[in-house]
Amino acid sequence: MNNQILETPYGTHDFLPRQAAEKRAIEQKILEIFKKHGYEEVVTPTIEYLETLTMGSSRTIESNLFKMFDRSNRTLALRHEMTTPIARLVSNRLKNSPMPLKLSYSTNVFRYEQTITGRQCEFHQAGVELLGSSSICADAEIIFLAIECLKAADLNDFELCLGQAEFASGMMEQNNLNEETKNFLKTAIESHDIVAFENKIDELNLSKTAADSLKQIPYLHGGIEILEKAHSMVLNARSRRALDNLSEIYRLLEVYGVAEKIVFDLGLIRNFGYYTGMLFEAYSSGLGYSLAGGGRYDHMLKDFGLACPATGFALGIERILLAKENQKPEKFSSKRDIYIGYELNKLNDAIKTAQKLRNEGKTVELSLSAQSKDEAEKSQIEKNYSELIYIE
Amino acid sequence: MNNQILETPYGTHDFLPRQAAEKRAIEQKILEIFKKHGYEEVVTPTIEYLETLTMGSSRTIESNLFKMFDRSNRTLALRHEMTTPIARLVSNRLKNSPMPLKLSYSTNVFRYEQTITGRQCEFHQAGVELLGSSSICADAEIIFLAIECLKAADLNDFELCLGQAEFASGMMEQNNLNEETKNFLKTAIESHDIVAFENKIDELNLSKTAADSLKQIPYLHGGIEILEKAHSMVLNARSRRALDNLSEIYRLLEVYGVAEKIVFDLGLIRNFGYYTGMLFEAYSSGLGYSLAGGGRYDHMLKDFGLACPATGFALGIERILLAKENQKPEKFSSKRDIYIGYELNKLNDAIKTAQKLRNEGKTVELSLSAQSKDEAEKSQIEKNYSELIYIE
Repeated sequence: MNNQILETPYGTHDFLPRQAAEKRAIEQKILEIFKKHGYEEVVTPTIEYLETLTMGSSRTIESNLFKMFDRSNRTLALRHEMTTPIARLVSNRLKNSPMPLKLSYSTNVFRYEQTITGRQCEFHQAGVELLGSSSICADAEIIFLAIECLKAADLNDFELCLGQAEFASGMMEQNNLNEETKNFLKTAIESHDIVAFENKIDELNLSKTAADSLKQIPYLHGGIEILEKAHSMVLNARSRRALDNLSEIYRLLEVYGVAEKIVFDLGLIRNFGYYTGMLFEAYSSGLGYSLAGGGRYDHMLKDFGLACPATGFALGIERILLAKENQKPEKFSSKRDIYIGYELNKLNDAIKTAQKLRNEGKTVELSLSAQSKDEAEKSQIEKNYSELIYIE
Repeated sequence: MNNQILETPYGTHDFLPRQAAEKRAIEQKILEIFKKHGYEEVVTPTIEYLETLTMGSSRTIESNLFKMFDRSNRTLALRHEMTTPIARLVSNRLKNSPMPLKLSYSTNVFRYEQTITGRQCEFHQAGVELLGSSSICADAEIIFLAIECLKAADLNDFELCLGQAEFASGMMEQNNLNEETKNFLKTAIESHDIVAFENKIDELNLSKTAADSLKQIPYLHGGIEILEKAHSMVLNARSRRALDNLSEIYRLLEVYGVAEKIVFDLGLIRNFGYYTGMLFEAYSSGLGYSLAGGGRYDHMLKDFGLACPATGFALGIERILLAKENQKPEKFSSKRDIYIGYELNKLNDAIKTAQKLRNEGKTVELSLSAQSKDEAEKSQIEKNYSELIYIE
């Protein structure tokens, strides 16, 4: 017998019963949390057209895709993440739905790359996409959800590094850097290559103050005081707006009661080129790779013909499993219960009420903006909640 | 904008929220039933080596596989069903586990073929494989599980067509037909091409009695009386054993209380060449395609280096969804509670006890063979059940 037939391909593996039960249990808990917050699951095909998948990413990921041909010789590929397929789905089939749309998924994705601990060629992600809202409430809810999911997986020893794509972009714009230089600097920060980053800045013939400010970017890492420190640097309006945006999100995260998990990191630049606002990665102290990541991506859907702001995140299921090797499977139960609307200036109360009810096991969708009572009633009916709580 | 980027590839589709919720709800109910009966989920890679996937099937399915190359130019393919990957997994990683092994799955599979209603290039299957038992109890449990799953999906208007691969094989052996002729006849029955089937038989220069008996095969369809009718035909030992096997399985299905769902079909021959005993397909009255199918396949694991009898089935999730368009999502809950052992001649009582406890919401694994009390206690501990019920 050819023993190769017993192997699985490079970068793939089997989940034996215990591992599969843990995976299923965590996925169910996470989907339950998503549902409890009004996010509805969608399922997209494993295979997409290559042009669809490469549309969403400004940097080329094509070399890492599993590709094949269909019978009319169009190139197909296995999806490498879920944000792009969901952008396609929304732009095509849900473009006339009432916004914001709250969608979730829990599925497998594929990337042909060097396998490292916690990273395989086929791996599983659960996440949400919140489409049609540019509100800071949307960003805060996304960050809160990521933290809730990690807590639900019994991971308490983690932190969430929060950055803002516009901060570094503003700093670079202020110094009139060209596209090539910007990309070089972003890649250097992303790969933690401080030497390349600083050498490049030295080549640019900037004023000492400007060069020193740019060189600070990778070091702007820490508590809320980092935002003050950044504000004190020479900044243009774009960078200042980025910092104000983070302050406002942080204030909401204090209301959610999760601010202690936040570490600011103004040098955070993620793999995908599409982030346009806040962005984050969650890290467990014991692991050298992120458990979850996400952010705001307001331009991507335009490429699919639907101009629409968006924010979202994904959790790495294998990485969470690795981070909590001995978790026992459990079950949740929940229903689609309550829609919460609120009048202007009552957002804090609304968040607290929502959390209280969710802690009691209820499905609660919190409106992302202040509404009149009539509008809230309309949303409740439209979204099929059995009860409306209106906070005034 | 290129509108093609909004499309999904041929034979694939998106599940919008309502459909995705129905899919998730049915899959959860089915996995819950599997779990309640002691079947543990496994997860295998979406991609396998081509040689692995073609190993399990005696007929070529290669032309229907989605194929690609890995970076060392080995051919990979997307799995077209789950029985072969599970046979590979068991032969490699679980070969030293205590038998029988009860495994389940709920996942997507891929076949490049003409799409028809209820059949896409990517579709979802949930199923079980019971490995290491050649007992009729194993076959009866598998059939009972298929019926339970369809009932749990609120499909009551269905029937389960039950055949035996060895019946037709015995009939053909009795007439000394060569391989080519056997394959021709099986393909003709499978594709319901009665004209080709009868013409071929006429060409064979058999006695009138022998030819008439063979021609009866596609018509041996109906209630338990069909087995009597078949017995009255000229038969060799192999065909008679096949009929006796069906009688015994039927007797157990009466105990399970599901015999009214059974329709015998001695001309049932399924797509895959690997069935070696009982085999079945479930049909809903409104639909022209099967909702579930399975059977015994005692030779397949030998190809993977592990001689081991096996039986199992798969449900087609999209087909079930189609058959019950308006099902609302619901949730189950369950635990891993009770292992039931029994002494010789107490199987009927054991089945009834197991069903009673499962109806009360308990997880119950029923032993597949009579055991001493000591052996039952060992199984209980090995399989991690909190309680043992021993019926003596």
